[in-house]
Amino acid sequence: MNLDFIYKNPTTIYFGRDALNNLRTELGNYGDTVMLAYGKGSIKNMGLYDQVVSILKECGKNIVELTGIMPNPTYEKVTEGAKLVRENDVDLILAVGGGSVIDCAKGISVSAYCEGDPWTKYWLQFQPVDNKIVPVASILTLAGTGSEMNGGSVITNDDMKLKMGRVFPAEMNPKFSILNPEYTFSLPTYQLVSGIFDMMSHLMESYFSGEDDVTTDYLIEGLLRSIIHSAKIAVKDPKDYEARSNLMWSSTLAMNPIMGLSKPQDWQVHMIEHQLGAYTDCAHGMGLAAVSLPYYRAIYKNGLDKFVRFATQVWGIEERDKPKEEIALAGIDALEAFVKECGIVINLKELGATEEMLPLVANSTVILGGYKKLTHEEILDILKSAYAAE
Amino acid sequence: MNLDFIYKNPTTIYFGRDALNNLRTELGNYGDTVMLAYGKGSIKNMGLYDQVVSILKECGKNIVELTGIMPNPTYEKVTEGAKLVRENDVDLILAVGGGSVIDCAKGISVSAYCEGDPWTKYWLQFQPVDNKIVPVASILTLAGTGSEMNGGSVITNDDMKLKMGRVFPAEMNPKFSILNPEYTFSLPTYQLVSGIFDMMSHLMESYFSGEDDVTTDYLIEGLLRSIIHSAKIAVKDPKDYEARSNLMWSSTLAMNPIMGLSKPQDWQVHMIEHQLGAYTDCAHGMGLAAVSLPYYRAIYKNGLDKFVRFATQVWGIEERDKPKEEIALAGIDALEAFVKECGIVINLKELGATEEMLPLVANSTVILGGYKKLTHEEILDILKSAYAAE
Repeated sequence: MNLDFIYKNPTTIYFGRDALNNLRTELGNYGDTVMLAYGKGSIKNMGLYDQVVSILKECGKNIVELTGIMPNPTYEKVTEGAKLVRENDVDLILAVGGGSVIDCAKGISVSAYCEGDPWTKYWLQFQPVDNKIVPVASILTLAGTGSEMNGGSVITNDDMKLKMGRVFPAEMNPKFSILNPEYTFSLPTYQLVSGIFDMMSHLMESYFSGEDDVTTDYLIEGLLRSIIHSAKIAVKDPKDYEARSNLMWSSTLAMNPIMGLSKPQDWQVHMIEHQLGAYTDCAHGMGLAAVSLPYYRAIYKNGLDKFVRFATQVWGIEERDKPKEEIALAGIDALEAFVKECGIVINLKELGATEEMLPLVANSTVILGGYKKLTHEEILDILKSAYAAE
Repeated sequence: MNLDFIYKNPTTIYFGRDALNNLRTELGNYGDTVMLAYGKGSIKNMGLYDQVVSILKECGKNIVELTGIMPNPTYEKVTEGAKLVRENDVDLILAVGGGSVIDCAKGISVSAYCEGDPWTKYWLQFQPVDNKIVPVASILTLAGTGSEMNGGSVITNDDMKLKMGRVFPAEMNPKFSILNPEYTFSLPTYQLVSGIFDMMSHLMESYFSGEDDVTTDYLIEGLLRSIIHSAKIAVKDPKDYEARSNLMWSSTLAMNPIMGLSKPQDWQVHMIEHQLGAYTDCAHGMGLAAVSLPYYRAIYKNGLDKFVRFATQVWGIEERDKPKEEIALAGIDALEAFVKECGIVINLKELGATEEMLPLVANSTVILGGYKKLTHEEILDILKSAYAAE
C-alpha cells in the first residue's frame, strides 16, 4: 500500500575534488559572524582547517570556534554551542566534520533561541520548531550518517543515558554541503567500515518493512549493490577516488528522505544501537552491524518474501528450487560474510559492552519495528547473541 | 571517472490521493493573480478544473486562463502566455496537465520579461537567465517527462521546424508540484504507454554512457526494474493505484538531475526524436521507442560491458557462458519484447512519418552521443530501420 508523502529537500550539494571552491560564493548569502564547529582536530591534520579559515577571513567573516565535538555529540555540547551563538549573534553555523558535528550543529541551531528546555521540547517531545533558527552548512569529512542533506539530529543526554534522534523539517537541513571524497582518504579503516555499515543500515531500516514493492524498494536494492561494490574496493585501497566518491554520495542518499518515501519503515536496529551507544560510546556503524545480524535472524520469518528478495536482488543468490527460508537465511549469511570481509566488529564485548549493561540497554530501548514488534525480553536475547558473536 | 557535480532541487512534492489539499497553504505564499495554464480540456472532464478553480477562488485569487496548450508546446503558445503574464502582472503560473503544459509554463515564465528574442536567447543560445521570472507550480496529470521536478523546458518552433530542449537552473523548477496518481487513471492507454517509454528512455540516456559504474548506474537499474514491474500491471489494469503511483514517482525521478549525477550522458535518442516530433507531432514516448531499438543495436558494440549489464541487471538474463555480444543483444531484444507487450508503436509510418521526411529529420538532428558519435547518414539508417519496423 503506497503511502502519501511530502518530499522537500532544499540542501545544495557541491560534490567533487574542487567542491570547496564554492564556499566563497555561498558565504556571500550570510551575515558576518560564522561559527566554525568541528571535532577533535583531524581537520587540522589534513589541512582543511587552514583552508576553511583562510576562506572565511578572505570573505571578511568573524569566526567563532566551537571545538571538541565528540563522536556521539552530547546535549551538554549543544548547550555550550547555543550559548556561544547567542553571545556572538552568529549568522551561520559551518560544521566541518562527520555526522556528529553536523548533528550537533543542528542541535545548536534549534536550541540557541528556544524558550524553555530544548532537550525536552525537541528530542523528548518531538515538538515542531517555532523559534528562530540559525542557518547550518557543512563540509563533510566522513561518509555515513547522511546528516549533510537531511534534518536529522541525534544527540546523547549523558545525565539521562539517552541517545535520541530527531528528524527536523527541511528548513533545518544544511543550506549547502560541500562533499569532497578526498577528505575521507585519511580516515582510519575502523571508521570507514563503521560508516559503510551505517549507510547500509539506513537503507535496510527502510527496506525491511511493508509487504509491498514500491519504487523505493528497487532504489534501495540498487544503492545497496553500489555500496557493497565500492566498499570492497575502498577497504583494499582507501585512496581509490571512484570508490570513496560512490560511498560518499551513497551515504548522502541512504539517509535521505528520498529512500524512505511511500512505505512504512522499521528502525528497531537503530533504536537498540542508540541505547548501546549511550552505554558504551561504541562506533555507531559497528553497533548497528552487531545488532542487525541477530535481529534479522529473529524477524525474517515475519517478512519472508522481502528477505528472499534481499538475498536474490542484493546478494545475487540464486533461487533455484530452494525453500524460501533457506534463501532468506542465505541472504543474511551473505550480509554477515560481507561484514566480516570488511573487518566490521560485531562482538558487543569488543565494542565495550559488559554483561551487566545488556538488560539496561534492552529495557531502555524504544520499541518500533516493521515486520514484528519485539518485546524487551526479545531485545535482550538479541543483545546476548551479539555479546556471544564470533 | 566520477565527475564533479552540483545538485540542487528546491521543488516541494505533495504526493498521494489527498495531495491537492496542500494547494491552499501553498497559494498563501504568492500574490493575487494566478495564471491557470492547461491543455485541451481533459482536466475539465475529470473534474479537476472545477476543483482547482474553486480553491483559487476561495483563496481570493484573480484567475487568468491560458488554455489549449498542445502536446508539443509551440513557441507561439509561449509568446501568447508571456503577453498574458505581462498584461495581467501574473504572480504565479499554475500548470495543470502533463509535461507539455509544465514545459510551456516554464517557457512563459522565462520569456515574459526577457528583453530581446527569448527563443534565440534561451533555446538556441542556451544563455543564462538574467531577467525576472514568474514562479511556476504544477498539478500533474500525466506521468512521463519529469518536468514537475526539474528545470527542463522543451519547446517547438513551428516556423523553424525545430524542437529544442533546455534545462534551466533549479530556480526555474516548479516551486511545488501536486502528484495524485488517480489523476492519471483516465489517460488513454496510448498515452500511458508512451509516457512509460519516455521515463525509461530518460534513464537509458543517462545509463548508456561512460565505462564506469558510478552509484547513479545502480540507481538507474533499480528504477528501470520498478518501472517494468509496474508498467506490466498498469497496462492490464489502468486503475491499479499502486502501479500508477510507482510509475508517477518513477517518472519524476527518472528525469530528475539525481539520475544523471557524476557521469557522462548520451541523449542522442532524444535529439533524433525531437526532430521526428517537429515533423510528425508523434507521441514523444512512441517516437523514442521507435528510435531506441535500432539506435541501441547500432551502438551496443561500443559500450558492450554496459549493455551486458543492462541485460543481466535490468532484464534478468543469465550470463552462463554466452558471448558478451549475445547477452547484450538479448537485453535489447528483451526491451523490444517489453515495448511490444505494452502496445507501444515503433513503426515510424504509423507514427505519421513519410519516407520524404526521413532525410530532413536526420540532417536536422543535433549530434550528441555517449559511446559513439553518429553521422547524419547513420542516423538516416536508424530512421529507415524504424520506418520498416514490424
